[in-house]
Amino acid sequence: MSQTAFHPPLRTLMGPGPSDVPSRILEALSRPTIGHLDPAFVELMDEIKALLQYAFQTESQLTMPISAPGSAGMEACFVNLVEPGDKVIVCQNGVFGGRMKENVERCGGEAVMVMDDWGKPVDPQKVEDALKAHPDAKILAFVHAETSTGALSDAKTLAELARRHDCLTIVDAVTSLGGCELRVDDWGIDAVYSGTQKCLSCVPGISPVSFSERAQHVIANRTHKVQSWFLDMNLIMAYWGGSAKRAYHHTAPVNAMYALHEALLMLKEEGLENAWARHRENHHILRTGLEAMGLEFIVPEDARLPQLNAVSIPAGADDAAVRSRLLADHHLEIGAGLGDLAGKVWRIGLMGYASRIENITLCLGALDAVLSDMGAAINSGAALPAAEKLLAHHEA
Amino acid sequence: MSQTAFHPPLRTLMGPGPSDVPSRILEALSRPTIGHLDPAFVELMDEIKALLQYAFQTESQLTMPISAPGSAGMEACFVNLVEPGDKVIVCQNGVFGGRMKENVERCGGEAVMVMDDWGKPVDPQKVEDALKAHPDAKILAFVHAETSTGALSDAKTLAELARRHDCLTIVDAVTSLGGCELRVDDWGIDAVYSGTQKCLSCVPGISPVSFSERAQHVIANRTHKVQSWFLDMNLIMAYWGGSAKRAYHHTAPVNAMYALHEALLMLKEEGLENAWARHRENHHILRTGLEAMGLEFIVPEDARLPQLNAVSIPAGADDAAVRSRLLADHHLEIGAGLGDLAGKVWRIGLMGYASRIENITLCLGALDAVLSDMGAAINSGAALPAAEKLLAHHEA
Repeated sequence: MSQTAFHPPLRTLMGPGPSDVPSRILEALSRPTIGHLDPAFVELMDEIKALLQYAFQTESQLTMPISAPGSAGMEACFVNLVEPGDKVIVCQNGVFGGRMKENVERCGGEAVMVMDDWGKPVDPQKVEDALKAHPDAKILAFVHAETSTGALSDAKTLAELARRHDCLTIVDAVTSLGGCELRVDDWGIDAVYSGTQKCLSCVPGISPVSFSERAQHVIANRTHKVQSWFLDMNLIMAYWGGSAKRAYHHTAPVNAMYALHEALLMLKEEGLENAWARHRENHHILRTGLEAMGLEFIVPEDARLPQLNAVSIPAGADDAAVRSRLLADHHLEIGAGLGDLAGKVWRIGLMGYASRIENITLCLGALDAVLSDMGAAINSGAALPAAEKLLAHHEA
Repeated sequence: MSQTAFHPPLRTLMGPGPSDVPSRILEALSRPTIGHLDPAFVELMDEIKALLQYAFQTESQLTMPISAPGSAGMEACFVNLVEPGDKVIVCQNGVFGGRMKENVERCGGEAVMVMDDWGKPVDPQKVEDALKAHPDAKILAFVHAETSTGALSDAKTLAELARRHDCLTIVDAVTSLGGCELRVDDWGIDAVYSGTQKCLSCVPGISPVSFSERAQHVIANRTHKVQSWFLDMNLIMAYWGGSAKRAYHHTAPVNAMYALHEALLMLKEEGLENAWARHRENHHILRTGLEAMGLEFIVPEDARLPQLNAVSIPAGADDAAVRSRLLADHHLEIGAGLGDLAGKVWRIGLMGYASRIENITLCLGALDAVLSDMGAAINSGAALPAAEKLLAHHEA
């Protein structure tokens, strides 16, 4: 083992995250470390909270980054809201609904599953049936943007159903935040978590979360202590809360907060609606190219995530070999299938800073070159002209 | 709220962590992000594991960084080893023993407390008495280097006692790793966690952990599922484990891993014993100066941590005002007292890269200037000559 300095290869990251991190954010990340209780850092924390409120479209004061990846953000929502014996309706249409079920059960709760096919959005009718069948359910949990399949579910409708049946909602917005419409307050979402490494184009490792006042009330009135000390929002609030005096809870990942702040500034500079529109437009261009090549999306058109494009692997293409060639020859990362879809699909991310025309051109060009060379069943040469035509049309 | 780019003030970090991060590590941190399943990243993970084995002085294969701060590393040890009903002997001589108790109870275990005064090391005799009185105890948990008081406990003796009574050990090495002698295998420690932001001089946010084979056997044969999905070592191992095929668990904080790798390289280049000696020698120089100034250590001489110096606040000095002046005028951060010691002590860190002569000179000079100016009861002018004399003696 060499054990010398590690210089990562340069990649274009078009998988399911991490996405390309702009140099501006990497530079912010590397600024000199200061103390986690330094007055200057406390000011930064307040700015991050305000910027996250903008990104989530919420006025909730309990909006902050958890000092760990998105899966810890998910766990933060469940351990704080679920108590032993609680019934939680969990929608599963991919990998992450399954992880929600694990979380409910590890909290001593009972998960009532609402199943949909992988690649389909969550069916509101099934959810309504489940809510009616289980009037004692406390929480409805679902994934807004299923990273494992590229399907977008109708969070607004699902949250409305939950409210009508007096249920709290826990919503996975890991892949949706910053990439497609998400309005936490307008839609009445009670607990939501995301990740930094998707459409925020920040480095991985931090999970923004937000809890509504209704959720805060439930947390403040729990019967049992939250089973996780590290993720207990009652304790975290003493550090991230609004008072000038911040109580030590854990040492915040100071430099990661510099990066998150910069990423959120970039989102605000662009404007949330503009960012959503950019993701949508670039998705159409990529889609046009992929379909011209003969690749098929696994998600119905009206439920496709613009930031994550899952397509079936064409006949004659060896999954791992193609991805290895893309990485080795073109320094391009696309995502493999996950869980039930392993070996069946590729997941092409257009997330945050990676949602750029040059990335689309690279991806279509590299896929065409590698698939043609390996003898896969595609329409070689069709993708780039089709994409260019749509791009020119957009610009006209 | 301004919401413009955040440029942190330049600080010299001599609190209880984060400590000064050398530019070499900040530069590594800012290298371009790659995927968490990229073959190049998987190689880096293997190097980090090997370097952590060196730092911990263990050959255990279950040695890796947890993707969250030290308090999550603590929780990882407890949630994986404690099952409901288990009895755990917890030694408390400061803040962090109390946090261990919280962890045990949140896992459904029973904590048997062995209490020592804040500032004193854990008393092995009391521990032996507790082990004898509770032959059904499964685990002995204690803090090696108490960050809240600056006391070093005899981990070797305590771990031996635990073995003799057929108990597993969980050891908090957050502040000891890289700063003073720690030999996980030789001492027979079963579970140990640390942090990156202390004597490794890395950015905060990651917690290195290691589990012995005995601990691994206990984890693999649990009756109940680990209550945390995010911290379940059975799942984490599928990603960090030895096989070439790595299963996705969570998205690793890729850039933080670049920084940790660089920090561990620096430790290996210096040599573990040399790093321990440097911390010891610089502690003696700082101590000489502080004592010449008239400040008193709260920990008995034979139990003082070289990397964390807790001294009583002298008469006539206003705690918060002094620290504010040090920060505002000299850009120097020292630590406040924590818990029972709040307002009574200062904690001066000489951790990792911050353990340098120029930091000692700055700290003694700034403390002398501020305390004199504010009319505190100190021997003004005595500290720096005393420190210089010892330094010259060392160098001779």
